[in-house]
Amino acid sequence: MFRTAELGRKVSKEEFEAVAPGLRIEILELQQKLRAADFPVVIVFGGVDGAGKNQTVNLMNEWMDPRWIVTRAYSAPSDEERERPEFWRYWRDLPPKGKTGLFLRSWYSAPVLEYAYGRIGENELTRRLDRIVAFETALADEGALILKFWLHLSKDAQKQQLKRLSKDPDQSWRVTDADWRHYEMYPQFIASAERMITRTSTGQAPWTIVEGENDRYRELAVLTSFRDAAQRHLQRRELARQTRDQLRQLAVAAPQAEPVQRVQPSILDTLDMSAICTKERADTEMPRLTAKLNALYRRAKELGISTVAVFEGWDAAGKGGAIRRITGALDARDYQVLPVAAPTDEERAQHYLWRFWRQLSRAGRITLFDRSWYGRVLVERVEGFALEEEWRRAYAEINAFEQQLTEHGVVVVKYWLHITPEEQLQRFHLRENVPFKRWKLTDEDWRNRDKWNAYESAVNDMIEKTSTGAAPWTLIPANDKRHARLTVLDTLCRRLKTAIAEAETSRSRKKSKG
Amino acid sequence: MFRTAELGRKVSKEEFEAVAPGLRIEILELQQKLRAADFPVVIVFGGVDGAGKNQTVNLMNEWMDPRWIVTRAYSAPSDEERERPEFWRYWRDLPPKGKTGLFLRSWYSAPVLEYAYGRIGENELTRRLDRIVAFETALADEGALILKFWLHLSKDAQKQQLKRLSKDPDQSWRVTDADWRHYEMYPQFIASAERMITRTSTGQAPWTIVEGENDRYRELAVLTSFRDAAQRHLQRRELARQTRDQLRQLAVAAPQAEPVQRVQPSILDTLDMSAICTKERADTEMPRLTAKLNALYRRAKELGISTVAVFEGWDAAGKGGAIRRITGALDARDYQVLPVAAPTDEERAQHYLWRFWRQLSRAGRITLFDRSWYGRVLVERVEGFALEEEWRRAYAEINAFEQQLTEHGVVVVKYWLHITPEEQLQRFHLRENVPFKRWKLTDEDWRNRDKWNAYESAVNDMIEKTSTGAAPWTLIPANDKRHARLTVLDTLCRRLKTAIAEAETSRSRKKSKG
Repeated sequence: MFRTAELGRKVSKEEFEAVAPGLRIEILELQQKLRAADFPVVIVFGGVDGAGKNQTVNLMNEWMDPRWIVTRAYSAPSDEERERPEFWRYWRDLPPKGKTGLFLRSWYSAPVLEYAYGRIGENELTRRLDRIVAFETALADEGALILKFWLHLSKDAQKQQLKRLSKDPDQSWRVTDADWRHYEMYPQFIASAERMITRTSTGQAPWTIVEGENDRYRELAVLTSFRDAAQRHLQRRELARQTRDQLRQLAVAAPQAEPVQRVQPSILDTLDMSAICTKERADTEMPRLTAKLNALYRRAKELGISTVAVFEGWDAAGKGGAIRRITGALDARDYQVLPVAAPTDEERAQHYLWRFWRQLSRAGRITLFDRSWYGRVLVERVEGFALEEEWRRAYAEINAFEQQLTEHGVVVVKYWLHITPEEQLQRFHLRENVPFKRWKLTDEDWRNRDKWNAYESAVNDMIEKTSTGAAPWTLIPANDKRHARLTVLDTLCRRLKTAIAEAETSRSRKKSKG
Repeated sequence: MFRTAELGRKVSKEEFEAVAPGLRIEILELQQKLRAADFPVVIVFGGVDGAGKNQTVNLMNEWMDPRWIVTRAYSAPSDEERERPEFWRYWRDLPPKGKTGLFLRSWYSAPVLEYAYGRIGENELTRRLDRIVAFETALADEGALILKFWLHLSKDAQKQQLKRLSKDPDQSWRVTDADWRHYEMYPQFIASAERMITRTSTGQAPWTIVEGENDRYRELAVLTSFRDAAQRHLQRRELARQTRDQLRQLAVAAPQAEPVQRVQPSILDTLDMSAICTKERADTEMPRLTAKLNALYRRAKELGISTVAVFEGWDAAGKGGAIRRITGALDARDYQVLPVAAPTDEERAQHYLWRFWRQLSRAGRITLFDRSWYGRVLVERVEGFALEEEWRRAYAEINAFEQQLTEHGVVVVKYWLHITPEEQLQRFHLRENVPFKRWKLTDEDWRNRDKWNAYESAVNDMIEKTSTGAAPWTLIPANDKRHARLTVLDTLCRRLKTAIAEAETSRSRKKSKG
């Protein structure tokens, strides 16, 4: 696989100087086009130490306008980072539309090195590489241009390069002890890289192997590849935009017939809407559950268990009130409530999951989402903001996102607060008539109400496709507010209790082993 | 996940009869459109025993013209099938463009059951599900419409259904002991199915969960889903065709600049083209290697080790002669030589890898491909038969294909026979002048020669991206025919020797354990 990058390819000073000025202008012009484009560029650099990853990234920053470039190199995760799922830091740093991200020591470094060192086996390597493929596919599906360069040196060339740099007083700082240790492990490192490249070189995010020995050759090779790929991608995206427009027209011209299962009862029809809780019961239960939640969340915090709670439901179903019953049991330093409305400009320039990734809290905290990423398969689907292929793809993307949370030990609780159309109408009228509630009722609420059936279909599909063992939906009859709030509290308590018991068991198991 | 399919949804006889005739006509008309389309339809049925998989498939065969339907249900693999990689039988049965394949007990059955029975763990389940995703993605990328229906019953409903069928003398044959055993394992089976659906429900190949209790409901739900998805897909494919045309026009209007690395030496320039073998050496070595190969392949056959040898190289590089030196050492019953020319009509109606999958031989046999699946990234790339995104995607598809071979224990040997342009010219002239060789030289050979540089770039990329540890390329300087043929034989002997040693070691290890 790497023999093609051990050919001693060279570009002479004269050749370089003949080509470089023209190429530099081309790339600057290209960057202007990319700034206006509706996608980000993600460029990953990997390779053998000494093959010139840093110099190449520096050159790109020098040749291009660095205001539109984000450069990142990751080392061991910080405390902040360790307390969140592994990919949190990569999501956080993704370039927005119009910008280019250059990633040195990226999401590939850890799996490649750990496999080379024998710390992880074949299965674990494959699992982690597949997670990377899913990550990159999600970005590419939303339009990102992803390029990955492997800068290569033969073992001999690496030795010479490290020696040369060590001798040069101006460059010797570039060579670390780790570089020499990696050199000793060259064969294992290369074998690991080969597996990595074979598994993760996809049509949408291919690896390009570049010989790193000659600086001028390497720089021209990377920059011309980048230029050609970016030009191709601009063309493709323009065609994709036309296709989107045509699909939208088709969708408007011939709205999808409701399939037969929609005429049928939905999962929401199975809820017992007569469920109520008397004031007397609420008066004893609510304080009891509040105290219980307080005790549980404090123990969870000690154990580093985070919670993500998602509140979805009809307009006026009582999401806000339910959230306040939870936060009433918590210390303000330990939670955040995130109301999800239309995305900001900054959020709109990113993958639709980005704004949720960025909000994940540190270990032990509770994050309450008042509406959530499920907007993709609810409002965006029903209102036609997302194309059918986009919201259909989203179920798998959402499951993958939540899986990263639950695998990291986060408790994911998802509530659907259900009210009947009649109850909603009553609440709307109440809001109209009570001055201090009037602001809560908007024209949009009335419009959404007209699409009740379409929303109900979407809710049914959402529950079918995203209620998983680790992150199940809890459907709550909410015509009676007391009943809804008690159920919300009780569910959270029970989920926390289970998670705490599991964490304590695995802790004591570790202790008895140690 | 399955709660939405335990709602007791029903369609009454009257409702069914009001809708069915119209739907049946719609579906027949749709089938006519699908027959003319440039893609196959793959429909997978999974689900709880007794949920009506068979009846649904029967109804589809009844309502549609069965000449354009392929129905398959797989049980334990036959001897024939066990001797080939697991997916061979699925590839072999794929419907061609214009046809619909209905798959009962498909590629999903074994992993779901084995995980439910506890025979495989989490990691192995994930590995096998990811292989399925790669398989379906490869088909979808080439245009296939893939639908997957999970027919569901609650545990109670399953029990009632099995009892009802058992009591009915006309239906009792439907209920097997295995069905009751599976019923006992309902919770494990459902947990396994949930993992499976979560992992394999992708945008291009989604699962639809359908409640199976009421026959009429189930049938209408499946058939309307099929109708809607097929109509959408026909639209999408038409738009995709337009995009392809535009991309082709762009490619013709602005041919891709050769990136800088192409001006540089390619991997082929590193070969020592002065390598020769004297007649004397050949006279002693050739018989020795022939005898050695004969002994090795007979031992490999005893051990069930198959070999797939790929011969690629320039026109007139001597592929045919090299192949004959190998077959000269073999028994005619144990090998097949497959010259790969333009695909047949039947092959053109399938995924481009299909015609290679179908040719895989039984255990212990040797299959020699004179040109191969690498045509996708060589001639199809250079001549523009494949779009850039198609041949770029192909490297990963080819690596996945070869990985299935090597994981099954097949020895994969890949030769590139290299000659210089000067040597080729001489051989062309010789062919022109020697009457019995004249037929070998075509106008196409001259045309290909004009594109030497473009082919050399393509060869270099191919070796870079597909020379893997388990399936490496062997590059052979072939200006001297004796040298080339000896190297071909010697390489095959060494690869067989290694594979035999590994098989014998793992065998004796198993024995000493047993």
